[in-house]
Amino acid sequence: MTSRDGYLWTEQAGLRPGIPSIGVIAPATNVTSPNAFYDVVVIGAGYCGLTAARDASLSGLNVLLLEARDRIGGRSWSSNIDGYPFEMGGTWVHWGQPHVWREISRYQMQNELKTSFDFSHGVNHFQLNTAGGSATMSHEEEDSLFASALGKFVNVDGAFGRNIMPQPANMFHVPKARELDNLSAQDRIDAIAPLLSPNERAVLEGFVLLCSGGTLKGMSFLEFLHWWAICGYTYQGCLDYLITYKFSGGQSSFAINFFKEALSTKRLSYAFSTPIKSVNDKGSKVEVTARNGHTYQAARIICTVPLNVLSTVSFDPPLPAGKCAAIGVGHVNQCVKVHAEVGDKAMRSWTGVTYPSNPLIYAIGDGTTPAGNTHVVAFGADQHHIQPEEKLAETFAAVQNLAPGKMDAVRRLVFHNWSKDEFAKGAWFFSPPKLLADHLEDMRARHGNVYFASSDWALLWRSFIDGAIEEGARAAMAVKTELAEADKVNLRL
Amino acid sequence: MTSRDGYLWTEQAGLRPGIPSIGVIAPATNVTSPNAFYDVVVIGAGYCGLTAARDASLSGLNVLLLEARDRIGGRSWSSNIDGYPFEMGGTWVHWGQPHVWREISRYQMQNELKTSFDFSHGVNHFQLNTAGGSATMSHEEEDSLFASALGKFVNVDGAFGRNIMPQPANMFHVPKARELDNLSAQDRIDAIAPLLSPNERAVLEGFVLLCSGGTLKGMSFLEFLHWWAICGYTYQGCLDYLITYKFSGGQSSFAINFFKEALSTKRLSYAFSTPIKSVNDKGSKVEVTARNGHTYQAARIICTVPLNVLSTVSFDPPLPAGKCAAIGVGHVNQCVKVHAEVGDKAMRSWTGVTYPSNPLIYAIGDGTTPAGNTHVVAFGADQHHIQPEEKLAETFAAVQNLAPGKMDAVRRLVFHNWSKDEFAKGAWFFSPPKLLADHLEDMRARHGNVYFASSDWALLWRSFIDGAIEEGARAAMAVKTELAEADKVNLRL
Repeated sequence: MTSRDGYLWTEQAGLRPGIPSIGVIAPATNVTSPNAFYDVVVIGAGYCGLTAARDASLSGLNVLLLEARDRIGGRSWSSNIDGYPFEMGGTWVHWGQPHVWREISRYQMQNELKTSFDFSHGVNHFQLNTAGGSATMSHEEEDSLFASALGKFVNVDGAFGRNIMPQPANMFHVPKARELDNLSAQDRIDAIAPLLSPNERAVLEGFVLLCSGGTLKGMSFLEFLHWWAICGYTYQGCLDYLITYKFSGGQSSFAINFFKEALSTKRLSYAFSTPIKSVNDKGSKVEVTARNGHTYQAARIICTVPLNVLSTVSFDPPLPAGKCAAIGVGHVNQCVKVHAEVGDKAMRSWTGVTYPSNPLIYAIGDGTTPAGNTHVVAFGADQHHIQPEEKLAETFAAVQNLAPGKMDAVRRLVFHNWSKDEFAKGAWFFSPPKLLADHLEDMRARHGNVYFASSDWALLWRSFIDGAIEEGARAAMAVKTELAEADKVNLRL
Repeated sequence: MTSRDGYLWTEQAGLRPGIPSIGVIAPATNVTSPNAFYDVVVIGAGYCGLTAARDASLSGLNVLLLEARDRIGGRSWSSNIDGYPFEMGGTWVHWGQPHVWREISRYQMQNELKTSFDFSHGVNHFQLNTAGGSATMSHEEEDSLFASALGKFVNVDGAFGRNIMPQPANMFHVPKARELDNLSAQDRIDAIAPLLSPNERAVLEGFVLLCSGGTLKGMSFLEFLHWWAICGYTYQGCLDYLITYKFSGGQSSFAINFFKEALSTKRLSYAFSTPIKSVNDKGSKVEVTARNGHTYQAARIICTVPLNVLSTVSFDPPLPAGKCAAIGVGHVNQCVKVHAEVGDKAMRSWTGVTYPSNPLIYAIGDGTTPAGNTHVVAFGADQHHIQPEEKLAETFAAVQNLAPGKMDAVRRLVFHNWSKDEFAKGAWFFSPPKLLADHLEDMRARHGNVYFASSDWALLWRSFIDGAIEEGARAAMAVKTELAEADKVNLRL
């Protein structure tokens, strides 16, 4: 099946919108009783909504899953093109990510991982292109350079962040962490600038922009420190957790299991291509109205709409001030992720940073396609942002600038423009300064019969697939428990 | 409620068997229809059986949970004595342990962790007592010594184990790992002996015996390497994962949530103090006969009996050769874990290794009791084994030898003798050489309508609470899927 989402460019066909995915669901709905009353309506079929719908239906609730897109996965999905998976958003997982690994384990997919890095091919080095020129170094030297730079960045407490954030699932366990959330990445870089060599500064800025997809001034230092903490407070941990292990069949091969299991309960109704207009909580029930005019009724709502999109849904009664304030601030991630299939086989072992001159900053050889070409994945940010489908020539140039002379034979480009996506308005959550200190609890709070669940406000792997599952499980558990206690629903037991 | 398990010694009362726990279940059974036919009988109410029973009952199956003891938790439980929790077996958890953390997160217990180490008190050092004498060093020096010694031990591949075991949930992903399972810890120590200082050798042997509870010759080197890999391939990771974070209310406050949630489905029947004699698979159904003569019938069985105890249950048809071989070998862990409450407040920050002369090898200050005393937890192994309740004087001496002159005022001892426990026959699983390479798949295999689930053969955090949950979830998922597909049971949907 082909999704409306994503873009594919090839020399033969040029740029075309829409790419295939096993996450596309057909038929688009199984709803036969338009006036049914549900125990819970789940808005959004990303990992969070899928988890919520699965857990709720497993526990005996009648569930309606509504999704604006034609596919599952939300900001995380894969497209299998000519027998090769491209990850459109979200890619890497690890056995130390608890919520995602529990599912990998439960679905017995532990042996379906492959690694992005493969340092056994010809162009086996790291390339750093800065204003000062271009340099190549071994991957060992690359690791030392990044580790040194990041170590200086995070070392606010003489313990590389361990003292200020000893329990990352409880981010403000040490109250002083709250003050630190006033800092942007730029603030922290300014403070340590004398300690950084030019190369350290370049890779540090490139790496934190890779993580945030934002700008140095716009991104929270503390949120980066949280990433660092969940990665075990080391650069090696960042590599292991953030960018090493991916699904050999593409991650939609994982997400589809949640949907299928929920369906197997026979308690899951769903409607795709059904964006939501409004949520009206009448106390004894909640009405959800879609843009197409259909209205659905339920005892509870689990709303997994991302922070940056929540302002497009009308809530009655209106959302409280704290939540509105968080929505007004929003998150800062406008990551540009571009897959390029290039003719040089040897580039499989290449990695590079090109900064600050290029819209694509950080890139790695990520695989070898069935045709024997190298698959390179490249990331840009809001700092020097580009809309690939609107600026195709600049996008090619940005790919080629990553390794001049080595990237000329581009056979294919694949990408999803998350910034222009009305149901995402950005990529994974990354906080600006103060948002988490001021509003994390507001974002997590329920509003009457409406629960809000999203990786955007998860406690541990916030922004990751893992955080989405954490949140979906939390919401389903809360709804199940509440409905059972209130005896407001006749659980199908 | 007071369990039959465990021992408590105080000066006033002397040695008494049985200690309190919120894991004791009363009434001991809720079975009202002795001839009921169940979808699944789960044998054992440790974390594995609790998870299996919970997941199966949540998914619509009628479940009978049978347990030999008077309490939940199996080899992992806590006793709250005078307002202070003592962990009788299993203690530490971490957010990077996926299966356990998913549950901590789902039960919203993320903020109920405290740390074992607290290096802010008076006796703030590491004490190493060896044949060569006694030395004290700072905790930083302690960490350097352990890290250096362990680094030499695990570095079989020039990459500290990363190359030989890059995917620890898939232990034999690199086939060469299989050969390595021929080695005992002693074999590996012999190979690197010239590289080790006397102090390095002492702490290395002490640490690996802490992990295995066995003997150096009897324990598998590869299984230790697996522990090292899941801890992130660093000594700091070992500290973080193995011995730092515990439940502030004791871990039985965690386990009870599984039981309560399963009960809330109204599909859980249970009987405690009901040891099993035999399992008879008749093809169309399975009969489980208890020692008390009661027989229970079900479509499927999930047997969570530990490896070392499986020989006490009679199976018809008999278990296949591979499984019998694994049972015949057994695991090697005869850990002795003793809690001592000592009068010296300052010992809170102390850690120590006393080796090889003492039955208790590794100990740390683990907390401060309500009375203001220091709670020290100490570990021994099969190497120089002691049965504390039979050798009380030697046990006191073993505690006092850990820090001569500092441990004299022992106010209380608390322990569970796992070696003498007929339902455990040892502590957490630790493999001898070859068992995993030869029989991991045999241990994991089903036998007709009987599924075998245990942390003893988990893939990732084998031997840990995490592995028990991994296995319970696997078994429940398999039974649920099979019964739904076979339509052999009328799921209560």
